[in-house]
Amino acid sequence: MQIKSTIHLLITGGTLDKQYQASTGELFFPGTHLPILLKEANSTLAIECTVLMQKDSLNMTDEDRAQICQACIDSPQKAIVITHGTDTMVDTALVLQQQADLTSKTVILTGAMRPFMLGNSDASFNLGAALMAAQLADPGVYIVMNGQIFNADNVQKNRQLGQFKPL
Amino acid sequence: MQIKSTIHLLITGGTLDKQYQASTGELFFPGTHLPILLKEANSTLAIECTVLMQKDSLNMTDEDRAQICQACIDSPQKAIVITHGTDTMVDTALVLQQQADLTSKTVILTGAMRPFMLGNSDASFNLGAALMAAQLADPGVYIVMNGQIFNADNVQKNRQLGQFKPL
Amino acid sequence: MQIKSTIHLLITGGTLDKQYQASTGELFFPGTHLPILLKEANSTLAIECTVLMQKDSLNMTDEDRAQICQACIDSPQKAIVITHGTDTMVDTALVLQQQADLTSKTVILTGAMRPFMLGNSDASFNLGAALMAAQLADPGVYIVMNGQIFNADNVQKNRQLGQFKPL
Amino acid sequence: MQIKSTIHLLITGGTLDKQYQASTGELFFPGTHLPILLKEANSTLAIECTVLMQKDSLNMTDEDRAQICQACIDSPQKAIVITHGTDTMVDTALVLQQQADLTSKTVILTGAMRPFMLGNSDASFNLGAALMAAQLADPGVYIVMNGQIFNADNVQKNRQLGQFKPL
Repeated sequence: MQIKSTIHLLITGGTLDKQYQASTGELFFPGTHLPILLKEANSTLAIECTVLMQKDSLNMTDEDRAQICQACIDSPQKAIVITHGTDTMVDTALVLQQQADLTSKTVILTGAMRPFMLGNSDASFNLGAALMAAQLADPGVYIVMNGQIFNADNVQKNRQLGQFKPL
Repeated sequence: MQIKSTIHLLITGGTLDKQYQASTGELFFPGTHLPILLKEANSTLAIECTVLMQKDSLNMTDEDRAQICQACIDSPQKAIVITHGTDTMVDTALVLQQQADLTSKTVILTGAMRPFMLGNSDASFNLGAALMAAQLADPGVYIVMNGQIFNADNVQKNRQLGQFKPL
Repeated sequence: MQIKSTIHLLITGGTLDKQYQASTGELFFPGTHLPILLKEANSTLAIECTVLMQKDSLNMTDEDRAQICQACIDSPQKAIVITHGTDTMVDTALVLQQQADLTSKTVILTGAMRPFMLGNSDASFNLGAALMAAQLADPGVYIVMNGQIFNADNVQKNRQLGQFKPL
Repeated sequence: MQIKSTIHLLITGGTLDKQYQASTGELFFPGTHLPILLKEANSTLAIECTVLMQKDSLNMTDEDRAQICQACIDSPQKAIVITHGTDTMVDTALVLQQQADLTSKTVILTGAMRPFMLGNSDASFNLGAALMAAQLADPGVYIVMNGQIFNADNVQKNRQLGQFKPL
């Protein structure tokens, strides 16, 4: 077991980063809340943080996924955590898994079913699990949700339950 | 990398489980909040849960540590997470590490600097990280705090910073 | 100053009662949260509580307003608090003010700019102010928001600021 | 009914303003949270704010009460809200009521059974009620807690229930 010491955190948005906007009564992206989450968590990890986009994953395009791929390839780190909307998280994971250039890296996708800023959220739990998985898991592309780690090619989201399950 | 599928969660109390008592203006243990935390986290892990005690770790005795040890030995699971007060977490970890009967198990101690029920707590983040470490880490006794995993014999708590650091 | 001893709380929905639905990523009405709010507030007021509807006030019809009116007229109480969406709160207040049958009652409309269940909400503050105004204010129809009490015929909502102001 | 337009908020501490200190595991006074509370509440009231002290009301001395009295007398406002610990709130209210110089002012004491910063608190509800009572109530000294308004000479705290009741 080799513990990777620095983690690259790539932020793409998703439910985790949404906030309630009082003037419209809708959810929106005011900017990432990951620094607030990590401070509340008392994290002392060496984390390099890059905000790639702030998008609902239902609106993610092939270009967005290519950009995420490239960011993983370009990263100097062997341990990468990507925050991502849950609806198309599996799609992005599969794209990353097909990248020959990423086979030496541990890439973890995670997100939340309830925005961090609305309280009573799964965001902190998921991020804690994802950051630990990035340090400990063998190279590969994984989804960490519901306390579990899934291989990119053996996971699906059950939308009715709001849970990730093996195929 | 072998992922352990069932986790035994041993609950001993600590700051994580404290709550504010309005009638006295003090913190107390009304019973563990771990089930609430795991539900909020949408955990689908197979978790066996045992409440051993509800104690401030400053009040833990040798008998308490012997009881925790025995619970780890008696557990049918290879992956164990112990929630524990932070002040003497290292002491308990060292006792567990000296147990010859535990060398085939992955034992993770974790806790929180702020009670889960007071909001803005590190509890969910720490528990997410600890449960993932229990699934992925090699056999041994570890402390998971601040997003990091420490070997039981190479960690100390810096009380002024409220952070765990290597020796 | 005569303090009215029992308050009739008429619940119509509005932002105050919305909650985030993880499966859809949208806000919805799972049922009123007023009992939770009043318990958290340690209220010992004698409150009679009626849920008339659970509606976004933008969707309120003339029939809905007629129903609210009738509920105020039918109430045996002299002090009435109505929870209501903020977007058309003034419209409903004006309808109530035109009711000759209500001139002997103190009717207070209030609501919230952020749902109670999302945390960091103005709901508890507004309800505390509204319930106090219902006990103390002279008969009439009022809106209580932003810590202030406005006559029904001298108030408007500034949507950009999300605040109520005199005309 | 005459609505007082500006309110003097005198802050003395009490449970409302306490926060959890991670390094010691105890509650302390890091400075008042009233501005945060009022912002969350979207208050647009004209409020003049003075921090007199940050004290647990069990530690309040005759000198402290004399200081609070003097601040009420010196205030240019007719409407005054005092935040105060609940344990000796009645004592302070009675001292204020004996002040001949205050008979033309409406003075409201309020507080909280759970600190604002611990979440799920009664602080915002109580402050909303107190600020409204300060605007509407006849001159006199009152306690506003549990959604109710009590005359200073007809109220006691039931410590077991954590509620204020008439004598």
